[in-house]
Amino acid sequence: MVNQKYYGLGTAPSGIRALFAYGLEQAKIVGPENVFDYSLGNPSIPAPAKVNEAIADLAQNYDSIKLHGYSVAAGHEDVRQAIADNLNERFDVNAKASELFMTCGCAPALVSVAKALTTSTDDEFIAIAPFFPEYHVFFTCDGAQLKVVPADTEHFQINFAELEKIITKNTKAVIVNSPNNPSGVVYTEETLTKMAALLTEKGKEFGHPIYIIADEPYRELVYGDVKVPFIPTIYDNTIVCYSWSKSLSLPGERIGYVFVGEKCEMWDEVFNSIVGAAREIGSVCPPTLIQKVIGRCVGEMPNLEAYDENRQLLFNSLSEMGYEMAKPDGAFYMFVKAPNGDAVAFSEKAKLEHNLLVVPGDGFECPGYFRLSYCVSNDMIKRSLPAFKAMIESYK
Amino acid sequence: MVNQKYYGLGTAPSGIRALFAYGLEQAKIVGPENVFDYSLGNPSIPAPAKVNEAIADLAQNYDSIKLHGYSVAAGHEDVRQAIADNLNERFDVNAKASELFMTCGCAPALVSVAKALTTSTDDEFIAIAPFFPEYHVFFTCDGAQLKVVPADTEHFQINFAELEKIITKNTKAVIVNSPNNPSGVVYTEETLTKMAALLTEKGKEFGHPIYIIADEPYRELVYGDVKVPFIPTIYDNTIVCYSWSKSLSLPGERIGYVFVGEKCEMWDEVFNSIVGAAREIGSVCPPTLIQKVIGRCVGEMPNLEAYDENRQLLFNSLSEMGYEMAKPDGAFYMFVKAPNGDAVAFSEKAKLEHNLLVVPGDGFECPGYFRLSYCVSNDMIKRSLPAFKAMIESYK
Repeated sequence: MVNQKYYGLGTAPSGIRALFAYGLEQAKIVGPENVFDYSLGNPSIPAPAKVNEAIADLAQNYDSIKLHGYSVAAGHEDVRQAIADNLNERFDVNAKASELFMTCGCAPALVSVAKALTTSTDDEFIAIAPFFPEYHVFFTCDGAQLKVVPADTEHFQINFAELEKIITKNTKAVIVNSPNNPSGVVYTEETLTKMAALLTEKGKEFGHPIYIIADEPYRELVYGDVKVPFIPTIYDNTIVCYSWSKSLSLPGERIGYVFVGEKCEMWDEVFNSIVGAAREIGSVCPPTLIQKVIGRCVGEMPNLEAYDENRQLLFNSLSEMGYEMAKPDGAFYMFVKAPNGDAVAFSEKAKLEHNLLVVPGDGFECPGYFRLSYCVSNDMIKRSLPAFKAMIESYK
Repeated sequence: MVNQKYYGLGTAPSGIRALFAYGLEQAKIVGPENVFDYSLGNPSIPAPAKVNEAIADLAQNYDSIKLHGYSVAAGHEDVRQAIADNLNERFDVNAKASELFMTCGCAPALVSVAKALTTSTDDEFIAIAPFFPEYHVFFTCDGAQLKVVPADTEHFQINFAELEKIITKNTKAVIVNSPNNPSGVVYTEETLTKMAALLTEKGKEFGHPIYIIADEPYRELVYGDVKVPFIPTIYDNTIVCYSWSKSLSLPGERIGYVFVGEKCEMWDEVFNSIVGAAREIGSVCPPTLIQKVIGRCVGEMPNLEAYDENRQLLFNSLSEMGYEMAKPDGAFYMFVKAPNGDAVAFSEKAKLEHNLLVVPGDGFECPGYFRLSYCVSNDMIKRSLPAFKAMIESYK
């Protein structure tokens, strides 16, 4: 009587959520100060003050009917223009309001893009391990296949030999997530240029464009002087999916966009199919109050000091203890090698013996590593260090 | 390369939007006071003051991380409890927070329900004319069929002889939209009791439940002493899709819910399949600030005086001129018989000769009638009356 795929999705336990729930229960028993929860990627810095000021001002001083009324499906034009202007200030891209389609966060953006590009169950999307597990749900939603390039566990850039092998005539797009969840690695300009060349060549070989889908919720979360290249400036056939969940600490407000530049091959078809797919999934318009807030706050950058302090403390402390990991330049994740190579066992032992909650990389299709979400208090990190130390020593 | 269904949906002209755009252009030529636009169903009364007060207070005084952080997919439990309490105060239903799944408005609620109940391309949903054209998009999204019961043009209740004929072993659900868009009619307790009996009987005959999907964005918009029965109190196998778009004048904020009571047959399967379908369309959680606002304002009722004044003025004036229509007890629509039976020609003539914009009923699968959205200024109605008079006289 009901759809078994959806029943499965509705009842499937999420390992990450289960860890988080375990932590809450343990906190009642051993005290919250003795639980070290690195499971969830929920921002731990508040939204910039200007965001909440804008919300209050709009509620108090803006016409209520206009504020809360429907916008067009793509989002208010003035807001999209502000986003385009901001992109143009930062990147050499010549973005226009008409190239932006705002969405209720990144998830429906990715779903709409997946649907727009899926024309047959032979179609293939390529994900590069390690990657966000929900890609399995989003990119197969209309029956396409998700193919996986194994992780480059040396630098967590891209394993090009494997990528080249996996591209076929059925490849619709390669999904690129940088700064990366779960590795925290930023793909370099060199990596992306190499990918652009490969996809251009393969596109010619197969007679159709192979798109990059750039999943960029962590774009603004980057440390030191590392730069995150804007992929449409490197490869025209790029579809950007963005969200302010992390950059403005607004994950619950569900606001993001799809950007497809007119230089993208078959722009009209690609853009309008995304619009149509969004219509089918019931995306009438993105939340309008938050749209207006974005229009006013699009130039705000997150205050990353707290995350950066956490990153350095954790990276330095863990490295000193003997843990190995890729250099975490962005997002708020670190992806650490499990001492004996079995991250599931490490995670279980850390949980039971130390109330130290870390997520095994298996769900990200990269076994042998575990993810730490360091969007937590600096104090918790300090308190957790003896547990990390005890764990690695237990393997010696 | 792209999905043609979605490309079609993304580029299909909406007749209603086209009329609205025509009105804006004409306003520049003849002046806005000479355009009489009854095309769009956008609320014209502001949100209750308490709504905007709650928004400002939350932005100024609530912890930003908690306010804007992810909620669980179903929505914050305290908010769902407030909704359940409100339902229980008004209806004999014993609703629980765990029976509610909050959504980004009614559209993704309907899509998730359609997906949850679709297991095969033989599956059928039944819509009762006249109905919201987007049902065609939502209910066929996973390949099911949408079957249509022709309108009961006498009372705009339900043509039971036709409904009975159309139900087959493949029928998954009947969609009920009351107060109705476009007719403004409220289905009586008698109508709904009769439907419950029919679906119970047919469910037994075919050996599986036939659900009612109650699409209720207009529930609170009802005039005089007319009551809108809460269908789960009449028929256990009811899935309610609700939105605050109209009742709190928040259409752009995208907030609503699905309610499935545990008394519903196969509750666990139905509820969790809806959860899973919502996950697949990227509904991570409903916007959290507005969730909290709903938690505080769920008991607020709209101030319908302005709509009711419009309704009475329009109904009395048009009736006096000789127009015929069903009694519009709810929503903010009237569905009027075209004088010579051709609503498309009437709409075109009214537009070209009088800048009077009315929507032909053909898109609602009820030709020969046109829809008036009276969520407009009372003044515009007064100014438009000579145009209505001239139109009906031109047919005499």
